[in-house]
Amino acid sequence: MADARVADLRSDTVTRPTPAMRAAMAEAPVGDDVFDEDPSLHELQEYAAALFGHEAALFTPSGCMANQIALQLVVPRAEELLCDADAHVVTYEMGAAAAYGGISTRTWPALGGALDPEVVAGMIRPPGGYTVPTRAVAVEQTHNRGGGTVIPLPALRRLRAVCDDAGLLLHCDGARIWHAHVATGVPLAEYGRLFDTLSVCLSKGLGAPVGSLVIGSAARIAEARLIRKRLGGGMRQAGILAAAGLYALRHHIDRLADDHARARQLAAGLAPLGVVDPARVETNLVLLDLRDAPLDAARLTAAARELGVLVSPFGVRTVRLVTHLDLTDDDVATTVSVLTKLLS
Amino acid sequence: MADARVADLRSDTVTRPTPAMRAAMAEAPVGDDVFDEDPSLHELQEYAAALFGHEAALFTPSGCMANQIALQLVVPRAEELLCDADAHVVTYEMGAAAAYGGISTRTWPALGGALDPEVVAGMIRPPGGYTVPTRAVAVEQTHNRGGGTVIPLPALRRLRAVCDDAGLLLHCDGARIWHAHVATGVPLAEYGRLFDTLSVCLSKGLGAPVGSLVIGSAARIAEARLIRKRLGGGMRQAGILAAAGLYALRHHIDRLADDHARARQLAAGLAPLGVVDPARVETNLVLLDLRDAPLDAARLTAAARELGVLVSPFGVRTVRLVTHLDLTDDDVATTVSVLTKLLS
Amino acid sequence: MADARVADLRSDTVTRPTPAMRAAMAEAPVGDDVFDEDPSLHELQEYAAALFGHEAALFTPSGCMANQIALQLVVPRAEELLCDADAHVVTYEMGAAAAYGGISTRTWPALGGALDPEVVAGMIRPPGGYTVPTRAVAVEQTHNRGGGTVIPLPALRRLRAVCDDAGLLLHCDGARIWHAHVATGVPLAEYGRLFDTLSVCLSKGLGAPVGSLVIGSAARIAEARLIRKRLGGGMRQAGILAAAGLYALRHHIDRLADDHARARQLAAGLAPLGVVDPARVETNLVLLDLRDAPLDAARLTAAARELGVLVSPFGVRTVRLVTHLDLTDDDVATTVSVLTKLLS
Amino acid sequence: MADARVADLRSDTVTRPTPAMRAAMAEAPVGDDVFDEDPSLHELQEYAAALFGHEAALFTPSGCMANQIALQLVVPRAEELLCDADAHVVTYEMGAAAAYGGISTRTWPALGGALDPEVVAGMIRPPGGYTVPTRAVAVEQTHNRGGGTVIPLPALRRLRAVCDDAGLLLHCDGARIWHAHVATGVPLAEYGRLFDTLSVCLSKGLGAPVGSLVIGSAARIAEARLIRKRLGGGMRQAGILAAAGLYALRHHIDRLADDHARARQLAAGLAPLGVVDPARVETNLVLLDLRDAPLDAARLTAAARELGVLVSPFGVRTVRLVTHLDLTDDDVATTVSVLTKLLS
Repeated sequence: MADARVADLRSDTVTRPTPAMRAAMAEAPVGDDVFDEDPSLHELQEYAAALFGHEAALFTPSGCMANQIALQLVVPRAEELLCDADAHVVTYEMGAAAAYGGISTRTWPALGGALDPEVVAGMIRPPGGYTVPTRAVAVEQTHNRGGGTVIPLPALRRLRAVCDDAGLLLHCDGARIWHAHVATGVPLAEYGRLFDTLSVCLSKGLGAPVGSLVIGSAARIAEARLIRKRLGGGMRQAGILAAAGLYALRHHIDRLADDHARARQLAAGLAPLGVVDPARVETNLVLLDLRDAPLDAARLTAAARELGVLVSPFGVRTVRLVTHLDLTDDDVATTVSVLTKLLS
Repeated sequence: MADARVADLRSDTVTRPTPAMRAAMAEAPVGDDVFDEDPSLHELQEYAAALFGHEAALFTPSGCMANQIALQLVVPRAEELLCDADAHVVTYEMGAAAAYGGISTRTWPALGGALDPEVVAGMIRPPGGYTVPTRAVAVEQTHNRGGGTVIPLPALRRLRAVCDDAGLLLHCDGARIWHAHVATGVPLAEYGRLFDTLSVCLSKGLGAPVGSLVIGSAARIAEARLIRKRLGGGMRQAGILAAAGLYALRHHIDRLADDHARARQLAAGLAPLGVVDPARVETNLVLLDLRDAPLDAARLTAAARELGVLVSPFGVRTVRLVTHLDLTDDDVATTVSVLTKLLS
Repeated sequence: MADARVADLRSDTVTRPTPAMRAAMAEAPVGDDVFDEDPSLHELQEYAAALFGHEAALFTPSGCMANQIALQLVVPRAEELLCDADAHVVTYEMGAAAAYGGISTRTWPALGGALDPEVVAGMIRPPGGYTVPTRAVAVEQTHNRGGGTVIPLPALRRLRAVCDDAGLLLHCDGARIWHAHVATGVPLAEYGRLFDTLSVCLSKGLGAPVGSLVIGSAARIAEARLIRKRLGGGMRQAGILAAAGLYALRHHIDRLADDHARARQLAAGLAPLGVVDPARVETNLVLLDLRDAPLDAARLTAAARELGVLVSPFGVRTVRLVTHLDLTDDDVATTVSVLTKLLS
Repeated sequence: MADARVADLRSDTVTRPTPAMRAAMAEAPVGDDVFDEDPSLHELQEYAAALFGHEAALFTPSGCMANQIALQLVVPRAEELLCDADAHVVTYEMGAAAAYGGISTRTWPALGGALDPEVVAGMIRPPGGYTVPTRAVAVEQTHNRGGGTVIPLPALRRLRAVCDDAGLLLHCDGARIWHAHVATGVPLAEYGRLFDTLSVCLSKGLGAPVGSLVIGSAARIAEARLIRKRLGGGMRQAGILAAAGLYALRHHIDRLADDHARARQLAAGLAPLGVVDPARVETNLVLLDLRDAPLDAARLTAAARELGVLVSPFGVRTVRLVTHLDLTDDDVATTVSVLTKLLS
């Protein structure tokens, strides 16, 4: 029954592997990756590291683990990381940086994902005495809670210089860095050279079923293997998953332009309701501002679900829509129609 | 070239998925498991919980994570777990119980995996005052460093009574509990009822590529989901892996008898060298005692590798051999022949 | 030699016990406080709790420990504390909140110690899902890095309402809350009722040699005793120190008005140099802004030391002066004279 | 009323400072020890380090903190300490080694405080692979739960050799090492040279009101200052306490022979009851074995309290008696009389 089709805009994590990706998984050569003997993982890790111009990469079961491993690599226990107050690493990772990494965090104000390197510079504390020393900075590209916004290259370059001056390391939570690359044309390697470590995700926009990667120097990735083992992320014949990731890297990056186009269609379709500024939609996320709307986030989410449209509450009066591999033009049209009905 | 065949007895983790298992994976229905929407995971988790007579189960990317989640469930931070001095949880899990769980451990002497419940009883410390209170006990069935030995049911029952008397919880590291079940005929549910939590492994003897499960009450498994997320073990369309696990549970338990038979063949073949007592080989692990042998563990491992036989050093003068799904009768014969040559 | 007199304005922690305070210590009745049997500690703890209108208090060897115990009381491991980016608890306590408490922190911008409760309200995250829930807010009264500034009572009351609405606890780092009380006339109990926990310091402005107190409900203070023991802060006949603290509470609060007057004298004397705005000096701290001065903080500190005046660098181009019990009018005059010479 | 005198044998921590010790405290020169400017602390720390032939020492508010600092110095987070199953560091320190230090512990069987270096040697795990590496060993001299027993010098020397062979560090919990020195005549420096770090206590047998010391190399003690600050143990004018400690070191070591003599008197007096073997009483602790007695530990403790004798339950059927500076010959006679009445 056609009516049973649900438009799922909750997250790009809901994508299911395509037939071609499943075929790649079915044929993947595998080995025991705890012994570092899985050929598909080797291929994936080398491929991903090369994309970003780094020496090495390590597969992890989740983006949370990739970020947390990277944070433990760049900040010693009891020392400090700076990030923005809406960063994924301090919002959606269950407090692991403090609870498991012992990492102290101070945050600069979240401004829709925008970055002011001078504000960061003003927060840095040098080592010495009994002061908690700042050791690293983390940025998020694109920025999830900011609404898929892209930090411009000049701001990142200035931040790199600030970090260099202060002897700090710089981590990029690049779960959706692919979208920044596609939206701006900045090569992945251009981004890669700005960061000491990156995490990138295969199972969000790229559509692989499972997995992220930590990327960095060979020495850091060797240490990352030990941290991954301690966190319980050492898998055996994970080449099955790596094959999907490789397929995604080879075939699903450029197509993100379609997701961006659909996000713009959503924004254009919903703009008349006054809940979204299309100019703020840069990639595949659309935030609806419900401050002046008749329904709050929880009610809109529930009402839309009844009509076959799934969205995510993202605050009391904010809702997030995400376009992705499994979302069709019809889904976009349905979504605009349903939300227009509910918000008029 | 037939000579290229390597007999890999390092671990039962090296098994590769069979064609039938790969077929099951290729067709698995999947969903986003972070949203708890993956049907294959649901099926696996319910199936495994039922096998052990428990309410619920949770899939994890590794046995380490399954154990560490369980330990965090049964021991509050800064309180105490008792286990044996050779237990996997304090030997091969990177110190995670202390480093991430804040769990204090005291150990009873490792006696080849044997368990004396009265020794455990004598170590328990009640809560009160400034003393670290004992909260849980962990046992390992079968026991890896003990050589695949099975803790007899009466000893487990007595330990359960000891724990009940003292108000302690009891965890079973059951990575190879399947082998105990097959070797003794004790039903899995009979084991299951003795423990508050169990971890069981799909990627060792059972031959699935990736994954373990934590098993326990519905309330504990709900909390386990949060701990798993904090550790970075929340995967998306992990149903691909769950399908392999389900296949393994349905088709690869009874066949462990073959692995046990091959282990006995190994022991019988090597007994004349005086490095193994066949009576101590209860399941699929064979420990070689090299105290009186011409080669120590490192040298024997290296020399055997040259001759196409892979084994694991397990101490300065101990080597471990493991039989598994990918090991053939010919591999056993080759192994006996190569080791006889090297140790004569 | 009169010239040997050094004017020590580095901190109010440098004060030495007065003869009367020493006499009180010499005669103090004592007992074993780990057994909770020290009469002088009992008296001190009850006296301090009553001052703030709370049920109980606990003596600690330092302000850091008092704060860290309180933070562990109000924020469960892996959950979140909000505070300002210049707060003592995330600046000068060695990262203990994260490293030992596992507490995740996000910070609002430091604005000279000023507090905007609506900014705090906007940062709060409710529990639910995989988001790190906000559990408590910490403020600092007076604010050290802000320059001894006092958060006005209306702002604190509004923050209390914000916390109540969101179900959050509120901690006050009140190391120098005495100064706020003396500067504003707000009764200590009026402050006390606004907070779930407070830390107050006996060895800064009040002049006792050692010690702080955590203040709160009887249930929280009972738990605080266990955390103090875990941190290693359980002392035996600490009544010796408690006697000094009691003396300080009884005799050294009102006299802080003298320290405030001397701080104003310093500001007035240095105002012509353009390094301080006397209107910003509210209590016993004076921050010198050296952005347009001929010497930076390190050089000014070194040069002043040569001339018998000790000050603290407080940033690259900021220096802090502190008035206290051991500082005389002559010291103030000397300081103005020396700094005027160096900064002209 | 003479009857009001209570014989307090619960612990040697209950001693109150003597008049001479109070006089030393009253006159102590002091400074701010967080700035490392307290002359009495300097004198104490240098004196104590020299006693044990080490470079440096650091004052702490408790023996727990001294031990925990030392453990953090000798074992990196997530790595391993070996100690006996009854050691103070895993029994009475609130799980801090795991909870704050992230230190994994395995234990050898507690045998009344006896030490078999070969058992320790057999438990050591080398670094490499994913195994938790052993980094240090801790022993306790004298042994509290063992009943004040002294580990013989040859066993300690053999253990030192075992540690050297394996590249391990060796810590001594020497809270009562003074008693071992007095009982055996082995010089403190002879003990000192066997250990990388020691903790020693001033407020148990030596009678100072507060404080312990960590002792070790200058580099380790510099790091210890930072860990002490993180734990909240940085005190200001702690020279007041240091003066008592210095007095204790200079005047209260040799007199421990009196405490040992009184412990022997207790044992001799109680031997006819069959609850103690006088040959096992080596220093100032006496354990009563109540397995065949008419009262268990809780009842005996309560009944004795009614008759003016305070003792410590030390297990279900074990009670501990401690002789110390404040205990008189009359107290000993009273204790023998009361316990004889209750246990006959």
